[in-house]
Amino acid sequence: MTDTRHAPRRKSATARSWWGWGRTDQALPDGECAALASLIPGLPAEPLPVPDLGGIDLAPPRIAPPGSLAPLFSHDPEERAAHTYGKAYRDVVRALHGDLAAAPDLVAFPRTETELVDLLDWAATANVAAIPFGGGSSVVGGVEYRGGGHAAVLSLDLSAMDRVLEVDTASRAARIQAGVLGPDLEEQLRAHGGGLTLRHFPQSFEFSTLGGWLATRAGGHYATLHTHIDDFVESMRVVTPAGTSESWRLPGSGAGPSPDRLFLGSEGTLGVITEAWMRLQDRPVHKASAAVRFTDFAAAAEAVRAVSQSGLHPANCRLLDPGEAALSGAAHHGESVLVLGVESAHRPVDGQLAELLALAADLGGSVPAPSGPDAPDTPATGQSGDGSAAAGSGDAVGAWRSAFLRMPYVRDGLARMSAITETFETACTWDRFPALYEEVRTGIGAAVEEITGSAGLVNCRLTHVYPDGPAPYFTVIAAGRRGREAAMWDEIKTAAMEILARHGATVTHHHAVGRDHRPGYDRQRPEPFALALRAAKSALDPRGILNPGVLVDPLPGPTG
Amino acid sequence: MTDTRHAPRRKSATARSWWGWGRTDQALPDGECAALASLIPGLPAEPLPVPDLGGIDLAPPRIAPPGSLAPLFSHDPEERAAHTYGKAYRDVVRALHGDLAAAPDLVAFPRTETELVDLLDWAATANVAAIPFGGGSSVVGGVEYRGGGHAAVLSLDLSAMDRVLEVDTASRAARIQAGVLGPDLEEQLRAHGGGLTLRHFPQSFEFSTLGGWLATRAGGHYATLHTHIDDFVESMRVVTPAGTSESWRLPGSGAGPSPDRLFLGSEGTLGVITEAWMRLQDRPVHKASAAVRFTDFAAAAEAVRAVSQSGLHPANCRLLDPGEAALSGAAHHGESVLVLGVESAHRPVDGQLAELLALAADLGGSVPAPSGPDAPDTPATGQSGDGSAAAGSGDAVGAWRSAFLRMPYVRDGLARMSAITETFETACTWDRFPALYEEVRTGIGAAVEEITGSAGLVNCRLTHVYPDGPAPYFTVIAAGRRGREAAMWDEIKTAAMEILARHGATVTHHHAVGRDHRPGYDRQRPEPFALALRAAKSALDPRGILNPGVLVDPLPGPTG
Repeated sequence: MTDTRHAPRRKSATARSWWGWGRTDQALPDGECAALASLIPGLPAEPLPVPDLGGIDLAPPRIAPPGSLAPLFSHDPEERAAHTYGKAYRDVVRALHGDLAAAPDLVAFPRTETELVDLLDWAATANVAAIPFGGGSSVVGGVEYRGGGHAAVLSLDLSAMDRVLEVDTASRAARIQAGVLGPDLEEQLRAHGGGLTLRHFPQSFEFSTLGGWLATRAGGHYATLHTHIDDFVESMRVVTPAGTSESWRLPGSGAGPSPDRLFLGSEGTLGVITEAWMRLQDRPVHKASAAVRFTDFAAAAEAVRAVSQSGLHPANCRLLDPGEAALSGAAHHGESVLVLGVESAHRPVDGQLAELLALAADLGGSVPAPSGPDAPDTPATGQSGDGSAAAGSGDAVGAWRSAFLRMPYVRDGLARMSAITETFETACTWDRFPALYEEVRTGIGAAVEEITGSAGLVNCRLTHVYPDGPAPYFTVIAAGRRGREAAMWDEIKTAAMEILARHGATVTHHHAVGRDHRPGYDRQRPEPFALALRAAKSALDPRGILNPGVLVDPLPGPTG
Repeated sequence: MTDTRHAPRRKSATARSWWGWGRTDQALPDGECAALASLIPGLPAEPLPVPDLGGIDLAPPRIAPPGSLAPLFSHDPEERAAHTYGKAYRDVVRALHGDLAAAPDLVAFPRTETELVDLLDWAATANVAAIPFGGGSSVVGGVEYRGGGHAAVLSLDLSAMDRVLEVDTASRAARIQAGVLGPDLEEQLRAHGGGLTLRHFPQSFEFSTLGGWLATRAGGHYATLHTHIDDFVESMRVVTPAGTSESWRLPGSGAGPSPDRLFLGSEGTLGVITEAWMRLQDRPVHKASAAVRFTDFAAAAEAVRAVSQSGLHPANCRLLDPGEAALSGAAHHGESVLVLGVESAHRPVDGQLAELLALAADLGGSVPAPSGPDAPDTPATGQSGDGSAAAGSGDAVGAWRSAFLRMPYVRDGLARMSAITETFETACTWDRFPALYEEVRTGIGAAVEEITGSAGLVNCRLTHVYPDGPAPYFTVIAAGRRGREAAMWDEIKTAAMEILARHGATVTHHHAVGRDHRPGYDRQRPEPFALALRAAKSALDPRGILNPGVLVDPLPGPTG
């Protein structure tokens, strides 16, 4: 394999952490890790060291790339390590403990769709599992091979296919390659002119790709109305082992079941998304936001329900329960905080915000004195996570926002201290929410205590809301035991999936299924749909090489 | 078969036409047919007589129902005749000519899901094609058997499963059986209280069912934002030969590809939809509408584009081109008419309408003097067809609305005079619309002249609009030749499908695929998606009994 070029990773690679979230220069120093951990009784005094690849034995690749495609491959240890896991808590913890047993044999960086087709052809012939990596920000084991009898494992990294290829300003749409990361996508749209933006800002924005968003049905910027990336898809191209699928660019169609909707959420099991025509928005110039405090969380949730059913469509509508509000510094004394944000490219939004605040006040909220509109956002501040629309106005909004953006790095710092710190998210109808909230708090609280031996925090925020129900996002923080962190979390997670299922709440609202959510997903997915999905997979991926273990298990034998 | 009860049809059956649209007492009398036809040169002087079933030989049923299920069946000739076709022009014409060769052998009226399961079990065993009938308003050959080697044909009529079973007012959703017709559905919701409505008003509202809307992805009331019924589905139950699929009630989910989206648009080929939890709306109390005139159609279309991208979300946004405006009496002298309607359950809408009108005026429209808001609608006037939000205000709005509701009856009257009168609809992105519009007008104009020997009318309206493109709806009126009406239309339709495909416009925006759109759909559907869909069908319907010929042809042999 001496002729194998170590293909360069994306531009930002120099600063990217192979074991933890984001950029190495943003990671918490040892002292800060220890200081944070001192707030949680029962943790070790010293952080786990930042892992050193030199001290970790990676098994040698079990297969050599074919000669003609060799320049696309890398078997560089850091590339293999960086492509082993996503960025879930359990991924970070395993990396911290030097466990890279799941490392792919090879990483490939196709630059064109033709090269991708060739790679899949080779993989099918050689019985190599092919796992689309996206930006590697999966928190559900979506990019990690966990067996299936393949000869070797290939991680597919589309970061070289990262261009905005075309912009149609009349229809406000752009043809965009799947490998582009969020900030680069917005930067290229800006350079095209026309004032258009995709305005899809999941919390992972900096480190996730368009293709990953589509494959996992990511939840983005809009807290109401259009929450999932699905609604912004005009057409898609997907390379499957059975051929390339390209839907027509259509604003709407009733011609049979939607082809795009089969590939949206298919998580790399049916094909590899290479590009999509995406619907764009005019960049908003009018913005306003405010935080409303509630002394009673149930009243706050009722206010959010009223907002969701008001037809006012706030861009941001985020409710922090007392624990979450306290943790982020947005409020104390047991208050819940509702962050509301409105925005428009076309008209002032102060009246809309005033109407929202009046509604919240009617339902028991303490509304702040009026303030001026926010400044227009920039690419940097525009990255606002899974639902946060507007920066700045009000201390509670600002406090929450800072905490939100810092959260994944804090998580890694706590992980180094062997704290358990992870989230899970769901959605349910409004009639079920109060009971679900209570049972998660008490049930997971009890599970944490039983599993870890001490009490932990179980907080909740609502990140997206629909007229028929909210998407609650739970955070769990507890003292883990060094070496047992991942196992402990897995037990807590199992308890969580059981509670969600009992309340008819989805196993995931926007984190996807991957491998970690399979038990809950297998319970939730209607069996006839499972039959159909398995049959579709067998037709498109008859050798079963695409992201095996995710979503469904293959049929016993190929039918295609 | 003497023990077979002739199951009663739905309550409205007494007045329903078996051969034409709607109610027999609404059909045009002979004199009116002739008067209408006198406007089109070259037609016969006398209408075809209303067909008499006594004079039509129906082949005897080729199969007897199984004893235990016999009470569910009818072989009454009028039931069989009424379940032979949908209500497309070519269906009406064939019935007028006494062609009922495609009549189903039997019609079954299951009253419960268990009975439906038993019926499908029997059909699979006996190799009987089972065709879900919905309300029978298909205009694409969706309910008509056209071969496939089955022993017999069964039309499945779910009109006895027509209840609103549950209403969740907190989440604004209702569990509704699939066989309910539009007016009955709204009446039951009204009786439940809470001021909720599904507010889905396709043109076929009176004579189509919830199950039909879901199976065909019907386009409803809202001209912008949410046009398809898809967006109002919270969960669905579908009986397939491989088991019953029930998705969870969820406001949103990112757990794999959406199960509902596979069954939405499946047109009875994968299973029979029995019930759904549907998202409801608060009944609007504030309404306003206005008509804007344009001397230039291109400018009018640009104004509609601006409206669609303005974020103002009018409930109605319907553009009539000069021919369509003249035909409906909404305008003359070559003007185009844009009908705008706004509505809200929560707040006055005059400001929203004023903003829409200002936008239209800026782009060249003649805006009327302000008028008061419309009265709240009633169940009767609330039925407003595919996108018309508001009744009454302004002569142009009223004229267009009256013509719209009368249209299907007029169509039947003209059909009796051997005029060709039919529509086709599509959607495309804004960048393609001007060229598409021109080519349809000239290309179909030329085709009509070549096929019929004389010039016809080719008009256009936009029924639904999206930020990235409109859904144009074309009307063709021409002099047919008696006995050749359906064949002539088929030739025109073939030309239309070719033009649509050339411009990347969908073969259907909301009429579905059925059998008539198969050539266009086969071209449009990505081939890997066709593979997946065929595999899914083989898994769910291994004997290939469900609505054979629609959407896809089965795999050569069962794989399930």
